[in-house]
Amino acid sequence: MRTAFYISDGTAITSEVFGHALLSLFPMEFEHQTIAFVETLKKAKETKEIINKVAKSSGQPPLVFHTFVNHEIREIIDSCDGVIYNFLEQFIAPIEQQLGIKAKPKAHRTHSIHENTYDYRIDAVNYALANDDGSNIANYEHADVILVGVSRSGKTPTSLYLALQYGIKAANYPFIDDDMDDMKLPKFLIPHKKKLFGLTIDPQRLMDIRDGRMANSKYSSARQCRMEIKSVENLYKKEKIPFLNTTKFSVEEITAKILSVTGLHRHKY
Amino acid sequence: MRTAFYISDGTAITSEVFGHALLSLFPMEFEHQTIAFVETLKKAKETKEIINKVAKSSGQPPLVFHTFVNHEIREIIDSCDGVIYNFLEQFIAPIEQQLGIKAKPKAHRTHSIHENTYDYRIDAVNYALANDDGSNIANYEHADVILVGVSRSGKTPTSLYLALQYGIKAANYPFIDDDMDDMKLPKFLIPHKKKLFGLTIDPQRLMDIRDGRMANSKYSSARQCRMEIKSVENLYKKEKIPFLNTTKFSVEEITAKILSVTGLHRHKY
Repeated sequence: MRTAFYISDGTAITSEVFGHALLSLFPMEFEHQTIAFVETLKKAKETKEIINKVAKSSGQPPLVFHTFVNHEIREIIDSCDGVIYNFLEQFIAPIEQQLGIKAKPKAHRTHSIHENTYDYRIDAVNYALANDDGSNIANYEHADVILVGVSRSGKTPTSLYLALQYGIKAANYPFIDDDMDDMKLPKFLIPHKKKLFGLTIDPQRLMDIRDGRMANSKYSSARQCRMEIKSVENLYKKEKIPFLNTTKFSVEEITAKILSVTGLHRHKY
Repeated sequence: MRTAFYISDGTAITSEVFGHALLSLFPMEFEHQTIAFVETLKKAKETKEIINKVAKSSGQPPLVFHTFVNHEIREIIDSCDGVIYNFLEQFIAPIEQQLGIKAKPKAHRTHSIHENTYDYRIDAVNYALANDDGSNIANYEHADVILVGVSRSGKTPTSLYLALQYGIKAANYPFIDDDMDDMKLPKFLIPHKKKLFGLTIDPQRLMDIRDGRMANSKYSSARQCRMEIKSVENLYKKEKIPFLNTTKFSVEEITAKILSVTGLHRHKY
């Protein structure tokens, strides 16, 4: 199997995203290896040795995705027996020309604490945890968005992703069995109606997820899942709450769709 | 202010990471705008109009970072009045040549639920929540890593990031005041010693964070913070627990360092 290396003087997240976006276009398997924090010439030489060993033992040059801007470190990595892909190199010059200023490369540019948006994100994580699963309905005035939906429709991971990635304060409130008989918007949500975003899910998928947690229960029965989903979808339509069926979407996609529909302000890009 | 657009037929996360990595090299401010899920020719034409309006009103061509592989949509976006940067275009051909196979572009390639690692990540999020803050010490045998440290040293956001991004099950256990008098590893952690990773933080920064939560308390006093940090750092050294001072690091950096030291297997790249 061909090995792909993701290398950087920082977290290597950018290299991973860059390389993964490209390799996902190819219908084959890769052995992935990340080497982060290559900040010294010594570490660069060690990294080069690791790549060269893989090249030798596999008989194929590894693919090396990196984003080094430091010239000395870059030269060492570029001289390895792998094939080098570095998108910064290709794009810095045209952007410099377009903006009319020179790039000022420095290490740890992205994904570092020095971004002034960092505290927003940690505050938002604390907010999401304190306001998960309807635990703190008194706090909704501070929410940027309130996710609503039945149990296991994807509210909690989405709230956390909104917080961690974008510094957005997301509360979430679960509609429970008792709400279903006469499905109305709970009183305490009415003043915050503009912040509501509904999640829904296919009943079959909901059953599967719930069955994994509580097999053969009323909670995971086909009838209960169908009834709950029908009730909340009717409520969303009646109250004109924007909503999304999460069945086929990842947490990244659900988040991106919520941002797209609501126009919420990201505290980080 | 110059506007940067991040555009994609999917979440646009790749475009954001790509554009942000480049723009962070330039010492100037940008207006950021993401347009996700541009999946139809109609949406592509609307997007082009939005870009053209910004170009006209600002008198400067916006920078447009995109990753379209669909030719028809790409042609529409490429014909806008912005300056186009698309790294896929530059790298697909050389990688095809290197691998000896053709790329098979399809929409929603990355960040989608179809990756077989998705359930790992949701399971890991549920695990991190259920095992946050020492709430479930019976479950540690299922942990991939157990983060330990004093209150407010960064354990919870790091556990969640490990779970959401990499599908790694991270429990976390806080050392509290009562532990400090005779600082030893709690009995229930001893069988899991190889999974422990310690976090520490500068006492001054810890005071600032705690003061924001409980001003003028013993909890946030200089003496208490210094004492707790000294105790846990001594414990880490005595017990040879790998540890990291989180003061100057973001959750991405803390996570990348933990992965680098422990060699934990990522379930997603």
